[in-house]
Amino acid sequence: MKIDILTLFPEMFNIFDHSIIGRAKHNGLLDINAINIRDYSEDKHKKVDDYPYGGGAGMLMTPQPLVDAISSVKKHNKGKVIFLGPRGSVFNHGTALKLSQEEELIFVCGHYEGIDERVYDYIDMEISLGDFILTGGEMACIPIIDSICRLIPGVLSTSESYEEESFYEGVLEYPQYTRPVSFRGKDVPEVLISGHHENIRKWRRLEALKLTKEKRPDLFKKIELTKEDRKLLNSLR
Amino acid sequence: MKIDILTLFPEMFNIFDHSIIGRAKHNGLLDINAINIRDYSEDKHKKVDDYPYGGGAGMLMTPQPLVDAISSVKKHNKGKVIFLGPRGSVFNHGTALKLSQEEELIFVCGHYEGIDERVYDYIDMEISLGDFILTGGEMACIPIIDSICRLIPGVLSTSESYEEESFYEGVLEYPQYTRPVSFRGKDVPEVLISGHHENIRKWRRLEALKLTKEKRPDLFKKIELTKEDRKLLNSLR
Repeated sequence: MKIDILTLFPEMFNIFDHSIIGRAKHNGLLDINAINIRDYSEDKHKKVDDYPYGGGAGMLMTPQPLVDAISSVKKHNKGKVIFLGPRGSVFNHGTALKLSQEEELIFVCGHYEGIDERVYDYIDMEISLGDFILTGGEMACIPIIDSICRLIPGVLSTSESYEEESFYEGVLEYPQYTRPVSFRGKDVPEVLISGHHENIRKWRRLEALKLTKEKRPDLFKKIELTKEDRKLLNSLR
Repeated sequence: MKIDILTLFPEMFNIFDHSIIGRAKHNGLLDINAINIRDYSEDKHKKVDDYPYGGGAGMLMTPQPLVDAISSVKKHNKGKVIFLGPRGSVFNHGTALKLSQEEELIFVCGHYEGIDERVYDYIDMEISLGDFILTGGEMACIPIIDSICRLIPGVLSTSESYEEESFYEGVLEYPQYTRPVSFRGKDVPEVLISGHHENIRKWRRLEALKLTKEKRPDLFKKIELTKEDRKLLNSLR
């Protein structure tokens, strides 16, 4: 996938030189470029912000550098132009899945108090990371790109890509244990070292349901419980 | 605020050397340290992961390096130990506000398929960034620390800290415009250059309500509309 990011802080995206995304870049699976919006400013001091009309103390990003940066990138990237901002719908696994199927994407990171409204004419989609405020769009862009890219075939190795798809279906993952069997007074549950696969499967499912009910009742309410799920949960009473 | 982060990728946190958080670190308002969990491994190859009991293809973080890293950091940081994971409640502005009042915090970033369940005994709080999957806890830790730190007095400059608190109250921000008055065929709305403060205030409020209704109906439903709000909205009919 080819990803271009328009930002005032391109050096922040060095974060993608590490770990799993860094490896995928190195292997040519991902082509991630950060482009400095400031380079497109026609102002002689390369200014990119100005005061808002109608008053208010914050600074806004002016439309010219942003719009020219978008136009320039679109010459070699045909992807959707995605702005990270509070008007977008909140990012989730469904959005990650959908965007992971694109071949090219362009992300636009705002800074200061926001962008001039007229820039929205050049944007295809807005995504919000959640109901909280960040110092800049970069902080939302980074986890969103990470979450999209890990779904692209080949980005995760076989062992990494193993996953209980449970979280996708709205169930938290069951508790997991690794070596040693006994760690500072706490042992691995016996069933997990029993070798009895069917019992392990049932134990994991029940623990996952219990955890979801306790920690994320909002998710639990939405689970379509199977006959077996009900039987497992009833066994607790 | 003093923040210690336990991670397998300390270099990712170089991101906090830039922009607003970088300036606050430089000014001594923030003391952010990333500590490598691997340094605490007692294994001769500094191994930090192993296979899960009961089967499954992924690797888990073993308890020893994590628990010893937490214990070591706690000697000089008395803050809550926060794990970034899916069982936590979803991060929002309320959580950011509450945590911004702490003097010290410890963040623990998981990697691989997860952590050994017994590590939870050493964790005070779990936070989830949202309902999607990341390559590691680092990707959630970064925006969460950013969102908390920007609320600490002095971290934002006076002009940056100006903000319509509207988003806090569940209303999106009104459209904003800066120079030039006319940009590629689109003009700044006349009211904003009228100098009539009361009309500007009403226009902004109405536009904010309209935007919220259109883009985030979930937020709009929760707004306690004032008498004036109703009057403004009725004027649209």
